Amino acid sequence: MRFISEQRLDDAVVERDFTLGEIPGTLWTPESITPVPLILMAHNNGLSRREPRLAARARHAVAQGYAVASIDAAGCGERPRTAAEEQARAELRRAMRAGEPVDDIFESLVGPLVEKAAPDWRTALDALLALPGIGGAVGYSGWAAVGIRLAATEPRIAATVLFAGGYVPRAQREEARTVTVPLLLLLQWDDEGNPRQRALDLFDAFGTEEKTLHANVGGHTGTPWFETEDGYRFFDRHLK
Amino acid sequence: MRFISEQRLDDAVVERDFTLGEIPGTLWTPESITPVPLILMAHNNGLSRREPRLAARARHAVAQGYAVASIDAAGCGERPRTAAEEQARAELRRAMRAGEPVDDIFESLVGPLVEKAAPDWRTALDALLALPGIGGAVGYSGWAAVGIRLAATEPRIAATVLFAGGYVPRAQREEARTVTVPLLLLLQWDDEGNPRQRALDLFDAFGTEEKTLHANVGGHTGTPWFETEDGYRFFDRHLK
Repeated sequence: MRFISEQRLDDAVVERDFTLGEIPGTLWTPESITPVPLILMAHNNGLSRREPRLAARARHAVAQGYAVASIDAAGCGERPRTAAEEQARAELRRAMRAGEPVDDIFESLVGPLVEKAAPDWRTALDALLALPGIGGAVGYSGWAAVGIRLAATEPRIAATVLFAGGYVPRAQREEARTVTVPLLLLLQWDDEGNPRQRALDLFDAFGTEEKTLHANVGGHTGTPWFETEDGYRFFDRHLK
Repeated sequence: MRFISEQRLDDAVVERDFTLGEIPGTLWTPESITPVPLILMAHNNGLSRREPRLAARARHAVAQGYAVASIDAAGCGERPRTAAEEQARAELRRAMRAGEPVDDIFESLVGPLVEKAAPDWRTALDALLALPGIGGAVGYSGWAAVGIRLAATEPRIAATVLFAGGYVPRAQREEARTVTVPLLLLLQWDDEGNPRQRALDLFDAFGTEEKTLHANVGGHTGTPWFETEDGYRFFDRHLK
């Protein structure tokens, strides 16, 4: 892990970009050196980890006593995309706009993306836990499909906040049954890109004994601000 | 409104029983005289307002800066029950145990109960808001059917936390569409007495723009403790 930049931000947050082999990432930590629990903040595969609202959320989490790391996993953010991926993305957007069934396109694009992204997150986790200032249990927040894969296969993940979950590859819909860590699933009731009933079915499928669903009125990007705070309280219960 | 007993409890809570015509009630307030917002805490129609876990919840709410009032509305708690009500209750219990359809029995028992209970709550609200030490917006917490009726017809109710909602009389399922105040619906995912899909349909039906659903794994009485705190945070946003 090689740190390539370091900034001290106004809110006593240290923001460091790093590379780890091919994987670019960012780590946000408090200025204090007392070890704090780590949250892996995974964005939707189409976005960059530099997206301002994601970065703002990371800084806010640091103020609540966490370290936050985000990477551009294989096929995400800054990482190169294959021509086949670009074509599948374009086709997915077109089919969604046209209101056509998208399952097969989605499966062929996102299924392999999860297979490639999860090992990158695991590599990052190994490196991050070796850093001073990070200690204790690890949480995961964000992209549902990768969160399911990690929660199902990575014993160091102790709690997970998943977003949306209407479209999740078949493999992760099956893996959800084997997830046993506490989880909070955030559902936007009118999410234009995530069928509600599938998200409810996914919630039902999780094998964990402590699972909570928070549903709010509104579309995909309309999650109310108070859910961010509810997320910290969830992590406080399980990581601190 | 006539106060018939007053106790100062260990946690700086004043608990006063009152009668208001035929309506018996209890008011929990802080010792301080600074006015605080009122929460109407309505229990399921089969329970008494003296049920220890309801009373404990009321005292806890006072510690968060609220006054809490509960009454035994018509047909509830200490209030006399007609022979027909007793018979319908027994029949409802029998049919639920036997796994038979309960809609018609439920409708014939609970439909009229809501019609009789809602005016008692309104009478209590008039009297409570005239007391010193109570001021600001009013919240409602508890029994879904009465909560819907009050939220739909009583402009002084500013926010409502409803519990369960699988079985709600037909009139309230319709009235839900006219509710416009912020609401939090608590759903126990495996509630043995409340069909999940109907609770989800009820959530969908509410007309309000700010509605949140919290679902947790477990049966009817298994609501996790952190939902109590989430409830206060919801009321803090809307009543303070």
